[in-house]
Amino acid sequence: MSSETRVTAGLLVIGDEILSGRTKDVNIGAVAEFCTDLGIDLTEVRVVSDDMGAIVEALNALRERYTYVFTTGGIGPTHDDITADAVAKAFGVPLPINVEARALLEARWAQTGTEVNAARLRMARIPEGADLIVNSVSAAPGFRIGNVHVMAGVPVIMRAMLEAIAPTLEGGRKVHSVAIDAGVGEGAIGGPLAELQARFPDVKMGSYPQMGKGTTELVLRSADEARLAEAADAVRDIVAQAHRKAGIAPPDAE
Amino acid sequence: MSSETRVTAGLLVIGDEILSGRTKDVNIGAVAEFCTDLGIDLTEVRVVSDDMGAIVEALNALRERYTYVFTTGGIGPTHDDITADAVAKAFGVPLPINVEARALLEARWAQTGTEVNAARLRMARIPEGADLIVNSVSAAPGFRIGNVHVMAGVPVIMRAMLEAIAPTLEGGRKVHSVAIDAGVGEGAIGGPLAELQARFPDVKMGSYPQMGKGTTELVLRSADEARLAEAADAVRDIVAQAHRKAGIAPPDAE
Repeated sequence: MSSETRVTAGLLVIGDEILSGRTKDVNIGAVAEFCTDLGIDLTEVRVVSDDMGAIVEALNALRERYTYVFTTGGIGPTHDDITADAVAKAFGVPLPINVEARALLEARWAQTGTEVNAARLRMARIPEGADLIVNSVSAAPGFRIGNVHVMAGVPVIMRAMLEAIAPTLEGGRKVHSVAIDAGVGEGAIGGPLAELQARFPDVKMGSYPQMGKGTTELVLRSADEARLAEAADAVRDIVAQAHRKAGIAPPDAE
Repeated sequence: MSSETRVTAGLLVIGDEILSGRTKDVNIGAVAEFCTDLGIDLTEVRVVSDDMGAIVEALNALRERYTYVFTTGGIGPTHDDITADAVAKAFGVPLPINVEARALLEARWAQTGTEVNAARLRMARIPEGADLIVNSVSAAPGFRIGNVHVMAGVPVIMRAMLEAIAPTLEGGRKVHSVAIDAGVGEGAIGGPLAELQARFPDVKMGSYPQMGKGTTELVLRSADEARLAEAADAVRDIVAQAHRKAGIAPPDAE
C-alpha cells in the first residue's frame, strides 16, 4: 500500500449553514460512498464557513496532500457564494465570465423563462484554465482546475456532478456507467426503479431530474460490465412501460 | 467581533466508517446545533480516519486555533479505537487505567451482567490530568483535557455527553438546563415528549435511555429560565402520567 499506488481524496464542504446546524450535510456520505465504489480512498473531510481565508487555506492544504479534491457548496448566485473566487485565488488565476458556462445557463433560462441578471451571471464566472463540470439538473456548471473538482452544495445536483466526473477519475478499480434519458419525470419511474435497485445491489442507480425539461437522467454504475448491461436492459424496460402508461411514443432503439 | 470576545469551536470526527460511507455521520449537525444554542461559533469540522498520525495532527491544529475542541468516535473497546491514545500522545501524557472510570464501568457491568475483560477495560484508559465526562447512557466515560472534549461516536451517547459538558462551557449566551429522571423507558414517554417539544420550540428537550437501568434521563435546555421552568413542569406532568399508566408509585416532589 505505497503512496504511489493509493488513490486518495480530500473533501471540502463549504457553507455557514452546515456549521450553524441549520442544514444537515448529506454530501459527505454521498462522496464517501462514491469514492469507495471507485476504489478511491477518501482520507479527510473538512467543513469550513463561507470565508475567503478559510476556504483558500483548507483548499491549499487538501490539494497538496491528496490525489483528488472535491468541494461542495458556495457556487450559487448570492453574495455569500464565494467558492469560485476562493478557488481562483488559491490557484492565482483570474475569474472571468466563461462563454461556454454563460451559454449553458442562458439556454436553460430561456427554457424556464428565468430572467438573466447580474446575480445569476455570477454562476458563469469560472477560473481561467478550468474545465466545466456538467450540471444535468439545473445547468449552472461546476468546474475542475488542477486536481480540484468544484461542485454544487444541493445534494441532487452534487450527485449529478459526481456522475459527470466519474469517467475522468482514475480509481483503484475500473467502473463502467450507462446513462439513460427516461423521457418522463422522476415520479413516473421512482417506484419500479427502487425495485430494480433492490434486485441489482451491485449496480448503483442514480436518478437526476432535469429541471425545466420534464425528463430524468438515469445513471447506472458498476464494476461488472455484464451486470451493468443486464440492469440497463431492465431499466429500459421500466422506462418503456412508463412511456406506454403516459401515452408517449416508444423511444429509439438506441 | 474581535477574536477576544468570540467563542469558537472545532470538531474532529474520527472514524474509518464515516470516510468509507458505511456509516452516515449525524454528529456534525448535532454539535453544530448545540454550539449555536450556546452562542459558540463552530468554525471548522474535520473528519479523519482511525489513524494515529492523522488524529494527532488534526487535534493539534484545532486545539491551537479554537476556544474549544470536540471529538467524536474512537473510544470504544476494539483495537481500532485509538482516540484516547492519540489524545495522550498529542498532549504528551501517559494513558493509565483511571480508577474512577474503571469503577463507573464495573458498577454498570455488574448491573447488566457484562463480563470484565481486557478489551472492555481499554475504555477505562484516560490521559493523565483529564477530567471524566459522564456517560449517562452506557457508563463508558469521555474526558476533557485542556480545551479538548473527547466524546463517543454513538449519536445518543455523544448527545448525552454534550449535555454533561454544557454547564462547563463559556458560551456567548448563558443557557440553563434541568435534568429529569423519567423512571420509565423512552417508549413510555416518547409520544407525549414529542408533543411538548413542538409546544416549546425554544426549549431543547433531549432524551437519553439509561442502558441496564430501565429509565431515561430527560435534559431540557433554554436561555429563557421562565420558559424552561414551564417546560420542566409540563415534562414532570407527562412523566407522572406515564407512571400512573405503568402502575409506578408517584415520584418524589423533587
